[in-house]
Amino acid sequence: MSRIAFIGMGNMGLPMAVNLVKAGHEVAGFDMSREIMGRAGEKGIRAMSDVGAAVQGAEFVLTMLPAGEHVRSVWLGDGGILASLDGRPLLIDCSTIDVETSREVAARAAESGLDMLDAPVSGGVGGAEAGTLTFMVGGSDGAFERGREILSAMGKAVVHAGGSGNGQAAKICNNMILGISMLAVSEAFVLAEKLGLDADRLFEISSQSSGQCWSMTSYCPVPGPVPSSPANRDYRAGFTAAMMLKDLKLAQQAAQAVDSATPLGAEACQLYRIFARKENAGLDFSGIIKMIRGM
Amino acid sequence: MSRIAFIGMGNMGLPMAVNLVKAGHEVAGFDMSREIMGRAGEKGIRAMSDVGAAVQGAEFVLTMLPAGEHVRSVWLGDGGILASLDGRPLLIDCSTIDVETSREVAARAAESGLDMLDAPVSGGVGGAEAGTLTFMVGGSDGAFERGREILSAMGKAVVHAGGSGNGQAAKICNNMILGISMLAVSEAFVLAEKLGLDADRLFEISSQSSGQCWSMTSYCPVPGPVPSSPANRDYRAGFTAAMMLKDLKLAQQAAQAVDSATPLGAEACQLYRIFARKENAGLDFSGIIKMIRGM
Amino acid sequence: MSRIAFIGMGNMGLPMAVNLVKAGHEVAGFDMSREIMGRAGEKGIRAMSDVGAAVQGAEFVLTMLPAGEHVRSVWLGDGGILASLDGRPLLIDCSTIDVETSREVAARAAESGLDMLDAPVSGGVGGAEAGTLTFMVGGSDGAFERGREILSAMGKAVVHAGGSGNGQAAKICNNMILGISMLAVSEAFVLAEKLGLDADRLFEISSQSSGQCWSMTSYCPVPGPVPSSPANRDYRAGFTAAMMLKDLKLAQQAAQAVDSATPLGAEACQLYRIFARKENAGLDFSGIIKMIRGM
Amino acid sequence: MSRIAFIGMGNMGLPMAVNLVKAGHEVAGFDMSREIMGRAGEKGIRAMSDVGAAVQGAEFVLTMLPAGEHVRSVWLGDGGILASLDGRPLLIDCSTIDVETSREVAARAAESGLDMLDAPVSGGVGGAEAGTLTFMVGGSDGAFERGREILSAMGKAVVHAGGSGNGQAAKICNNMILGISMLAVSEAFVLAEKLGLDADRLFEISSQSSGQCWSMTSYCPVPGPVPSSPANRDYRAGFTAAMMLKDLKLAQQAAQAVDSATPLGAEACQLYRIFARKENAGLDFSGIIKMIRGM
Repeated sequence: MSRIAFIGMGNMGLPMAVNLVKAGHEVAGFDMSREIMGRAGEKGIRAMSDVGAAVQGAEFVLTMLPAGEHVRSVWLGDGGILASLDGRPLLIDCSTIDVETSREVAARAAESGLDMLDAPVSGGVGGAEAGTLTFMVGGSDGAFERGREILSAMGKAVVHAGGSGNGQAAKICNNMILGISMLAVSEAFVLAEKLGLDADRLFEISSQSSGQCWSMTSYCPVPGPVPSSPANRDYRAGFTAAMMLKDLKLAQQAAQAVDSATPLGAEACQLYRIFARKENAGLDFSGIIKMIRGM
Repeated sequence: MSRIAFIGMGNMGLPMAVNLVKAGHEVAGFDMSREIMGRAGEKGIRAMSDVGAAVQGAEFVLTMLPAGEHVRSVWLGDGGILASLDGRPLLIDCSTIDVETSREVAARAAESGLDMLDAPVSGGVGGAEAGTLTFMVGGSDGAFERGREILSAMGKAVVHAGGSGNGQAAKICNNMILGISMLAVSEAFVLAEKLGLDADRLFEISSQSSGQCWSMTSYCPVPGPVPSSPANRDYRAGFTAAMMLKDLKLAQQAAQAVDSATPLGAEACQLYRIFARKENAGLDFSGIIKMIRGM
Repeated sequence: MSRIAFIGMGNMGLPMAVNLVKAGHEVAGFDMSREIMGRAGEKGIRAMSDVGAAVQGAEFVLTMLPAGEHVRSVWLGDGGILASLDGRPLLIDCSTIDVETSREVAARAAESGLDMLDAPVSGGVGGAEAGTLTFMVGGSDGAFERGREILSAMGKAVVHAGGSGNGQAAKICNNMILGISMLAVSEAFVLAEKLGLDADRLFEISSQSSGQCWSMTSYCPVPGPVPSSPANRDYRAGFTAAMMLKDLKLAQQAAQAVDSATPLGAEACQLYRIFARKENAGLDFSGIIKMIRGM
Repeated sequence: MSRIAFIGMGNMGLPMAVNLVKAGHEVAGFDMSREIMGRAGEKGIRAMSDVGAAVQGAEFVLTMLPAGEHVRSVWLGDGGILASLDGRPLLIDCSTIDVETSREVAARAAESGLDMLDAPVSGGVGGAEAGTLTFMVGGSDGAFERGREILSAMGKAVVHAGGSGNGQAAKICNNMILGISMLAVSEAFVLAEKLGLDADRLFEISSQSSGQCWSMTSYCPVPGPVPSSPANRDYRAGFTAAMMLKDLKLAQQAAQAVDSATPLGAEACQLYRIFARKENAGLDFSGIIKMIRGM
């Protein structure tokens, strides 16, 4: 049983914090939203008045925030985490942010002799609730060992991706493939349809052939072949188009920073940017097949 | 034991015909190349003087030709297959060609009361030699049943994709996903490299995550994670870049014909067109990672 | 004064035929639509009962049809133009179609000793009405000389692009640049807007700089800088998105046929395919800025 | 006659500084390279020992540096420009950098009551030498008026693009169109070639039609139609592919920052990234036609 501070308890953070409580840990939480704080209290999380109060006595400090700017201010700002610590907890940021900010914050923590991990997740809200997330972790071997158990309470896979920032790198590289794949599968199923080839025939063939990919076999964007996929419920998310776009943008940001060629990654980002406007932003990311189909 | 005529015995056709011989069938073959005819003879195939001689008494007639124009002339031309038949064999074209030509030739055969299947393959030269090809078959149920056993002698999977032309449709839809996937995985591994993330770390994470695809887990374009992949032998083909481009072009041709949107399929086709010039044409298609990397 | 047959009198063909009448020529016309035939009659065109009747005694036969399939059947079909001629008129197809069909029909005409030109146009409905079209002409020097005056009655520029089919080639190469340019200018003006740079400032600078192009200086997709552009009247066409897509598809068809790399041309085609759905099809092609902007 | 400090006298900066000398101004210059300082001295520029010495007594301080990081350190660093000023000169940065850094440095200058302009240029080395550059200027009206004459000594067009950073914004929006245009024209001329349409025919037609653009009519990427273009001298730069890539990357950086959709801009950036490797980096940017053609 450990004392854990959890900052940022939105759609992902709250169920993650709840799984830590279920695993027997004492969780002190903070979120900017009163409503969330209320729900957190109902689920056995100690609702604290601010970041500073939440991290007192913590052995682990976790954050789950929307973007680099939030990570920067929550960790580095006045009254933020680093400024408020009263011990030497293991620091873990589970947010999905740009590699550069991630490495910068960890470097600042290291200046104070503190271990920090970047541990972004894969698995969406469903995975957060079910405790089946995959954590892609960056940081030293020692820090990784310190954090392995805590992360395992929230996920089914905890993988050490290398040094600081490599968790973010692994996630955005994986998710760049994911966004491209979903478009590829969408294009193929719409083309098949127009050529008179039934979706279930294409699925049967391709799922056992060289075109096989998770986007098809676990998340098919047409209703039928994979009954659990959002296509079977009008593309109710799941993993939203807005979230897919966020990750594709982070991949482009990283590619620009290191001057890496990503022609399909760039195009996938642009297509999701065009698609994820207004009402489509909250649709499941597999809903992009509707744009390909012309609806 | 059946009497089979096999027209077109190149890199794919010859090993396929050999597997029919190994399965105990009597195979009469023809190819334009004397050298190939010599090798065919050595492998137990009866080398015939021309198409007409090859199809005499045949119960099955198979072709494996480069493109629609060859299929058109071999099947429909003077002295071609339809003009030379002396019985009512099952006709099977295993070439990968455009859907339109495929449906046209089958329609002409149907006018003479002959069953015909389009049965393009997946699995490359390796699959042809090992008898582990996947056949994607278009044609009537009756014709499919007639042909199933013969095709099984050359492959590990024989799937009925629907009516005439649906075999071609399934193949090009699958291969459009394949070409896009290989580029996606190439882009991701090069980006990871530049971000300081080891290839084996990315592979471990992504192969068990939402970015998983055959291009990564069976054919990884970087040496190491999948020891059997061409990346481990300097990208010696395998499935050449020229062949990948051929399939991507067929996908675009089909998409144009039915006015289907394929933004990533179109871009993958263009990138392979730029890559598969001169000496790169014979490289394995996973060698496109070299263009992404800038070598 | 010449006797001219004009087949196909739609949005483009009718005003073109009218300009021939205004130039003093005797025009016998035919169109499948009764309503159009009525209007043609009101404008001084002799409305004929069918293609055959229209071409009797003609010194020039012109067609303006939607696609290669129509050109093929009107020129080559039973009761079509070639089958009905009673003399040796100069034949001119002003339709925008694929290069291959164009060259094929001209070759068939040549077999009967007839001169034929492909003379697709640029300038849209406005240019057709004002008689300011540009004709891009393919055919022999002799045929070009025979046709120059007639074409000049309908346009302000008549250019000989080379042999048969080169008129089509010139048009689709030009229009591929056009489609790409309009997207480039749209992307730039939307980006400028979001960066706080006024459209008129960008226009002033870029119209005199290396980014200058017709899409910007004659047809600016934002209202203001070019008061005559469709942007100033809610993108009322003009040159429709559907027509731009048609031309971009013809360019891709040609590029595929000769294996030419056209990465941006392919992408522009895909973006117009996605945009020109349903109600957007009839919008001016510069309206694609709305898709870029996210409306 | 004014006293001007000029920091950064490379391929662009040196001829620009020389034009100021020719216009009768007293120019004190500094560059990190001894060799450049030597040549500057020969051309009538007073070679100073460091940035601080150069800006003493200056009425105008100009910089021409490679990227945002250099601009940041030269203007804001210890011993940099702002730290060394002994008066209230007009500050002008002529570098092409990201909009964000540009606005940040100007804001810092404003804190000290100093006027600053971003005034990136268009026209390349040739324009710098001939004094025919176009300046796209961001900053207040008053600052613009102060700087107009000085800039006019180096260019033929000095345009006020709006507030701080708008000069950069105008340049990268213009240059995004330029990069896309050059690819469009390259694709079109290669396609024309393969269709049997002569380059000069396509040029004649398109230069007077809706495909007209600067990339074609002032800088044609095939030899012949525009004798002064680099295509006529083996693509000797001119404006290098590396410089075009730099600008396309800045456009993508800006587009990402404001979440603007730029599908063709993104693709053009990727294609130039793939092209501008190793020996191609110093080739003229119109040399990308070689990649399209497959050489």
